Amino acid sequence: MMKFCFGIDIGGTTIKAGLFTEEGTLTEKWEIPTRTADGGARILPDIAEFLLTQMRQRQIKKETVLGVGVGIPAPVGENGIVRKTANLGWGYKDVKRELQELLGGIPVQTGNDANVAALGEMWMGGGKGEKNLVMVTLGTGVGGGIIYDGKIAAGHNGAGGEIGHICVNDGESEPCGCGRKGCLEQYASATGIVRLASARLKETEQDTLLRGREISAKTVFDAVRQGDRVASEIAEQFGRYLGYALADIAVILDPAVIVIGGGVSKAGEILLPFIEKPFLERAFFANRDTKFVLAELGNDAGICGAAKMVLG
Amino acid sequence: MMKFCFGIDIGGTTIKAGLFTEEGTLTEKWEIPTRTADGGARILPDIAEFLLTQMRQRQIKKETVLGVGVGIPAPVGENGIVRKTANLGWGYKDVKRELQELLGGIPVQTGNDANVAALGEMWMGGGKGEKNLVMVTLGTGVGGGIIYDGKIAAGHNGAGGEIGHICVNDGESEPCGCGRKGCLEQYASATGIVRLASARLKETEQDTLLRGREISAKTVFDAVRQGDRVASEIAEQFGRYLGYALADIAVILDPAVIVIGGGVSKAGEILLPFIEKPFLERAFFANRDTKFVLAELGNDAGICGAAKMVLG
Repeated sequence: MMKFCFGIDIGGTTIKAGLFTEEGTLTEKWEIPTRTADGGARILPDIAEFLLTQMRQRQIKKETVLGVGVGIPAPVGENGIVRKTANLGWGYKDVKRELQELLGGIPVQTGNDANVAALGEMWMGGGKGEKNLVMVTLGTGVGGGIIYDGKIAAGHNGAGGEIGHICVNDGESEPCGCGRKGCLEQYASATGIVRLASARLKETEQDTLLRGREISAKTVFDAVRQGDRVASEIAEQFGRYLGYALADIAVILDPAVIVIGGGVSKAGEILLPFIEKPFLERAFFANRDTKFVLAELGNDAGICGAAKMVLG
Repeated sequence: MMKFCFGIDIGGTTIKAGLFTEEGTLTEKWEIPTRTADGGARILPDIAEFLLTQMRQRQIKKETVLGVGVGIPAPVGENGIVRKTANLGWGYKDVKRELQELLGGIPVQTGNDANVAALGEMWMGGGKGEKNLVMVTLGTGVGGGIIYDGKIAAGHNGAGGEIGHICVNDGESEPCGCGRKGCLEQYASATGIVRLASARLKETEQDTLLRGREISAKTVFDAVRQGDRVASEIAEQFGRYLGYALADIAVILDPAVIVIGGGVSKAGEILLPFIEKPFLERAFFANRDTKFVLAELGNDAGICGAAKMVLG
């Protein structure tokens, strides 16, 4: 009898879901809106109803569903308990138990979304074949996921891998979203790159493609590709903060591979040398063979990693 | 039938060995010299002969020995292969296989000494009852061990947990032993504290118990205990480097507890607030409940952790 599992990736705006076979083939995927009103009370019932409907329509029996993996944008450990979320409306919530009940007993596995995406990239993306991996997600913020020995390393509070909040600049005067100052996220996120670019454009009189345009991480790396010097300087500054931070992370974790993902990584291969060069300047001898790769699964990393939590 | 295991801690000068029951009671311990001549060729045969002799004398049959755990002062993973050692004379060495053969097939487990000591502290020392732990060893250098989910996190090259080589000062001009500059080890080791103290004494005219004396980590913390202000400033500087670095480590690993060990930790409980205060200044919200404790096993941490690798 064919067996299945679902991978779910809960975001602040949409919930992504994927149906996987036991062998790990993604056979279908969907997106439904995340209803965050009323303290997010509808989120888990919406997921359960949606999955049960899909199962009914496809005549998938409950007994053939090995489990449902769920990535959540908040610290969460194996126990499945969330204490606080930034954008789902949830306070304390026993996600694992609640969703299991709503699904009539189908087993639920939970993990932090960045950690789950890292697991997805290990399973079938940029980190394929490796068991010790760090994934850095360069989006609006900087997220991180750590895979140790093939499994998510969530830490004591389920808050491991918060790479964006390593302090990389003691001299920073502007606060990070977390309230502290000098976090990696202030320099290496999409918004961080824009901040670095604006500052650089104010400092310099040099001619650049970036002047007078709307700046984004994309326009910066597009300009780099066209040989723009100011844009390259901005990319170098970004890469130095990130590469130095990753050298410290490598000293601690000794990963085989570092996967660079998130919106900024859409710049493509051109991004990697900007990170690798400062990494190698700083790297401890034992970490000099750490590989850098781009994430490959894009928006599917979350549902893939969520399914992998179930398939083990 | 009573079962046993041995825990071995190979150091540059002596090899420590302990005999443990299956239940984890340390029943006897010994020390033998480490013969590093001839590329360390005698080290494993010495260990094997010693253990086989002890077994014979105590009429312990090979079948009742569950295994021998070995802590090694070099990067080493579960595969038991060492590629380079700083002070044993070994280049490439398949420690696990060689020692297993010398012991007539008794299973051997290997780990890096700092990681093994951390496992020991988790098992029966300062980190008892916890599964996610970071141990920092403040000795001549700064070593580190990471226990994740109850097991040693050795990383891809067996070089995980090299906490002493996190870069904490971009402005450093003197090189670290590793060849780079600004490593935590340059400030938070016993020698680092002496360096900080010498610099401070040169800068200040203030009266202090430290003036004109031989400085060591011990004399600094002894003077702190007597209310010496300059000594307190030195301790604060040491604590700031270490506490800030540990805040970054906590962001990545989210440990339940940080165990402070090594020679410097003999200063006792007085040490902890100097580390905890800057840690809390810097800590990410999710890591603010991280506990700090002193190591409790002293020189036995290595043999205990080595035995624990066998007992699982």
